[in-house]
Amino acid sequence: MQNLTIIKVGGAIVEDKSRLNEFLDRFAQIDGCKVLVHGGGRRATKVASALGIETKMVDGRRITDANMLEVVTMVYGGLVNKDIVAQLQTRGINALGLTGADMNVMLSHRRPLRNGIDYGFVGDVDFTDGQQLAALLEHQLTPVIAPLTHDGKGSLLNTNADTIASETAKALAPFFDVSLIFCLEKPGVLANPDDTGSIIPVITRSDFSKLTAEGIISGGMKPKIENALIAVKAGVKRVIITKAEYLGTDRGTVVRC
Amino acid sequence: MQNLTIIKVGGAIVEDKSRLNEFLDRFAQIDGCKVLVHGGGRRATKVASALGIETKMVDGRRITDANMLEVVTMVYGGLVNKDIVAQLQTRGINALGLTGADMNVMLSHRRPLRNGIDYGFVGDVDFTDGQQLAALLEHQLTPVIAPLTHDGKGSLLNTNADTIASETAKALAPFFDVSLIFCLEKPGVLANPDDTGSIIPVITRSDFSKLTAEGIISGGMKPKIENALIAVKAGVKRVIITKAEYLGTDRGTVVRC
Repeated sequence: MQNLTIIKVGGAIVEDKSRLNEFLDRFAQIDGCKVLVHGGGRRATKVASALGIETKMVDGRRITDANMLEVVTMVYGGLVNKDIVAQLQTRGINALGLTGADMNVMLSHRRPLRNGIDYGFVGDVDFTDGQQLAALLEHQLTPVIAPLTHDGKGSLLNTNADTIASETAKALAPFFDVSLIFCLEKPGVLANPDDTGSIIPVITRSDFSKLTAEGIISGGMKPKIENALIAVKAGVKRVIITKAEYLGTDRGTVVRC
Repeated sequence: MQNLTIIKVGGAIVEDKSRLNEFLDRFAQIDGCKVLVHGGGRRATKVASALGIETKMVDGRRITDANMLEVVTMVYGGLVNKDIVAQLQTRGINALGLTGADMNVMLSHRRPLRNGIDYGFVGDVDFTDGQQLAALLEHQLTPVIAPLTHDGKGSLLNTNADTIASETAKALAPFFDVSLIFCLEKPGVLANPDDTGSIIPVITRSDFSKLTAEGIISGGMKPKIENALIAVKAGVKRVIITKAEYLGTDRGTVVRC
């Protein structure tokens, strides 16, 4: 099977023009088929603020009322997505910006109350159309996916970009040898949180149990590695956690079987 | 050749939820391949105003500085485009939202000064990739095109939606029997401007000269008919000028050879 690289890049890079440009240079140099999934939360917060709309977060997740849904639709689906697409075209990458509503590629349902919290127009993914995405890749197109899905009933839904990246990777695993790369601010999973040189090169399921028990994997990294292990179990060849600046090097943590 | 219907719908309908829904119902009922090109200027003006950005128009055209470019990218490429795509999916239409940057379908150059006026980030179209659009249509997809193009050098450009519709029609004429429909507030070209029942059913090149000389075609309608005649000369089968509410009826003015 052909190789496919799926990269998720978050808001910190997306909102910094020079870091974004450097990242897109590195992304463009990756051989073979590729998909880019982007965030944009910081930009959305800025635009919301300029519009007098207050941003409410619970456990790092955005409460998305009707006004905030308009903001994220504008910012993720328009501003961020189309800018990235235009920038990739200058690098010879034939990019196509997508939300889950486009070509019906990602269906979700509105998240039910969790611990009494109504997240509003936030989607949990039910279905990703790997076949349609694979067809785009076979036509030498590079999908650039915004963190928006739809419920099939006319509503767009704000959806976590990590989840979109994982679901895309799983849906494409039957068609490609998929490497899923999460670009974080940290260079990988660190054995010693104060030493950025202490990157753990490989984590398997059994390593994970051990590292969690030892407290080396904790906090926000724990669900990330758990999701990575689920993706690997579902057929994704490897999940890599690294810094955007390390793309194209072998630095970072590889999660695999 | 297969029939293809390309419809351009403007801001007045796009910003009115109930009119938009009715329009999309009618659009969904059109048989065969179709493309939707939308405006959204009124919505952009509202969002710009809410952001404290002043809208400047010259001869009905928006002056697009860097801030306004961000607004139209958000509103046209995100808010309006993705909402229409999600609404069409509920009607069983497999829509795909595009700007000219996506799949590199429409390249333009920044408009040079005209009569000393700098329109800013406004694009005049150089190239439309009919082959790629035809491939999408052959895959049963319905492109929904926002009035944004790109210059291939990393800049999106605000582009007149009528122009996008005409250029799309011309680029697809080698592949389909194209009908291009402009939905206006008027039901067609009227012999008597005070009588909406006086629609002129057909206008050819020679009719146009006569009607212009008689003053029946004047003002904003004149460039519209001129552009329609150019499209027809370039292979588009017919251009229809009608009201959105008349879609699916035979009311309106047909411009043809």
